[in-house]
Amino acid sequence: MGNIAVLGAGSWGTALAMVLCDNNHDVRLWTHNDEQKKMMQTSGMNEKYLPGISLPSNLNIVSDLEEAMNNAESVILVVPSKAIRETCKKALPYIKKHMVIVHGSKGIEPVSHCRISEMIQEELKGMDYSGIVALSGPSHAEEVSLKHPTTVTAASVSASAAKYTQDLFINEYFRVYTSQDIVGVELGGALKNIIALGAGISDGLGYGDNAKAALITRGLAEISRLATVLGANPLTFIGLSGVGDLIVTCTSVHSRNWRAGNLFGKGQSLSDVLDQMGMAVEGVRTTEAVFQLSHKLNVDMPITRAIYEVIFEQKSPKDVVDHLMTRNRTTEIEDIASILVDRYSD
Amino acid sequence: MGNIAVLGAGSWGTALAMVLCDNNHDVRLWTHNDEQKKMMQTSGMNEKYLPGISLPSNLNIVSDLEEAMNNAESVILVVPSKAIRETCKKALPYIKKHMVIVHGSKGIEPVSHCRISEMIQEELKGMDYSGIVALSGPSHAEEVSLKHPTTVTAASVSASAAKYTQDLFINEYFRVYTSQDIVGVELGGALKNIIALGAGISDGLGYGDNAKAALITRGLAEISRLATVLGANPLTFIGLSGVGDLIVTCTSVHSRNWRAGNLFGKGQSLSDVLDQMGMAVEGVRTTEAVFQLSHKLNVDMPITRAIYEVIFEQKSPKDVVDHLMTRNRTTEIEDIASILVDRYSD
Repeated sequence: MGNIAVLGAGSWGTALAMVLCDNNHDVRLWTHNDEQKKMMQTSGMNEKYLPGISLPSNLNIVSDLEEAMNNAESVILVVPSKAIRETCKKALPYIKKHMVIVHGSKGIEPVSHCRISEMIQEELKGMDYSGIVALSGPSHAEEVSLKHPTTVTAASVSASAAKYTQDLFINEYFRVYTSQDIVGVELGGALKNIIALGAGISDGLGYGDNAKAALITRGLAEISRLATVLGANPLTFIGLSGVGDLIVTCTSVHSRNWRAGNLFGKGQSLSDVLDQMGMAVEGVRTTEAVFQLSHKLNVDMPITRAIYEVIFEQKSPKDVVDHLMTRNRTTEIEDIASILVDRYSD
Repeated sequence: MGNIAVLGAGSWGTALAMVLCDNNHDVRLWTHNDEQKKMMQTSGMNEKYLPGISLPSNLNIVSDLEEAMNNAESVILVVPSKAIRETCKKALPYIKKHMVIVHGSKGIEPVSHCRISEMIQEELKGMDYSGIVALSGPSHAEEVSLKHPTTVTAASVSASAAKYTQDLFINEYFRVYTSQDIVGVELGGALKNIIALGAGISDGLGYGDNAKAALITRGLAEISRLATVLGANPLTFIGLSGVGDLIVTCTSVHSRNWRAGNLFGKGQSLSDVLDQMGMAVEGVRTTEAVFQLSHKLNVDMPITRAIYEVIFEQKSPKDVVDHLMTRNRTTEIEDIASILVDRYSD
């Protein structure tokens, strides 16, 4: 079994490190925070991010990046999207030719509109390594750490890197599918956070499951539309990193994007919401980036626009959601068809 | 405004009648049960199916079918799928040339494998009427009766009948889209109940949101596959009567199919579950019909088969779900692609 460096000891990084330990790999979980390292070593738990869960005894927790990367055959990068570039810069001296770089982060960078793998590629430019893989799907970290059945997709333009990642992680409770559509898998993982904010807003307004399901369904159509323009395979959005991830993120109280949306729906401001969450809310940053991108590419995204207006322009959530509901009557399928038919009609 | 007969005073029939009253139609809601009629008239509520909700004062409740159908410009049929044929037989003498027949029922008939509109067509054979429409989408009756925002699809091979139905029902909280894919809309509404049973089983076993999302996602792929073979437009399954209805049915405690599945997951037998539910559980009948149909058409439906084994062959829910999770590793997209590519590659 191999030496694996997991960079980032939030809930998802820790849960992935635990899966790798279960598969008998030699795992070093790196945190930039020396105090967090000491607390995890002392308590045998990651109390901030996975409270109550015992860490495996064969998990090494380190705060020295060189120690984490030493002899690693692959690197699993699981930091918030805004820390991706900085972490890549730090890891750069230790990147080796044989390494597969897997990431479990979700987001789109404002202004540049880069996906996570594009940021990694830019930061590691000129370096030799074996491939970049996005690992994504409907997966609350808490449940993975409890070994509840979970399915995810390992996506890479390199089929062999995707297959390597599948072999690394797969076991009886953590099922890994492969895909070559890294564009779709990364966009699905990132964009679904916008819709989760919307689902939270709807719930925060006191609307019911019918309204939320409508919002999720129309949201799926609109993120698929943008992603297809950006080169994704629309079929990815019917799969685990589309529908699957949307369902988990929009209907679970575990979801921090849903929770943030819920607070917006109850009338709280951006700064209040961020204060209360105390963790990264990827959807907020992604909403900003995608709102810009939809303008640039001239793609109609009414739900994203509505959420942007609530978060960044302090519009009333009720007015904005009610306006979404009373748009002109139309046939349903023409809207969805525009996503797929273009692709398959040539 | 028109005279409308709503046949069936369960929760959904009552909620649809309330929407029509709100739109100032002259509505007669028919129940075959004279006692239920009297109770509803006395209490001003449908206490069995929509407890606590006051009925509009302009709603007429009748138990005489001729009275319900007298001068009706359209008929809304909302009875359990197993009562469709019998209700059509009773209504036959009052069917008129100008009538649009809308139904809000969900199911597939065992043995014949008929959809609801096919049963109606068979029973009304030789009669002249204006069209059959399926009204379906993510819509808990309770929420509609509370005027929470809701979206549904009115599907018919007749575009004018679909448009008529849209005009009849649409208002500020009840949004109606039209579609000509009645095959897809009816199959989506019916088949999603199988997946809801599966979601309930997963929850009943104590598995988490990750497992449920995986099951729903793979379930959506498999019902789309069957429906496409039967002539549906696969795009319908990305819309309100596919993804949308699945989300509502699989993640809400209102859903009786989910609740029944939950009891199966906890180890109860079919007769125990049906006893406890006290209402029709459409998914049980549909699972049987679709299991037969998948054999006949040679369509691979592992999730439907698993649920059939739990319900009708008393297999252990845990064994069956664990077996689903550990099927061979595979690429994700080829599975989904087989649904759509065939359709768009010619």
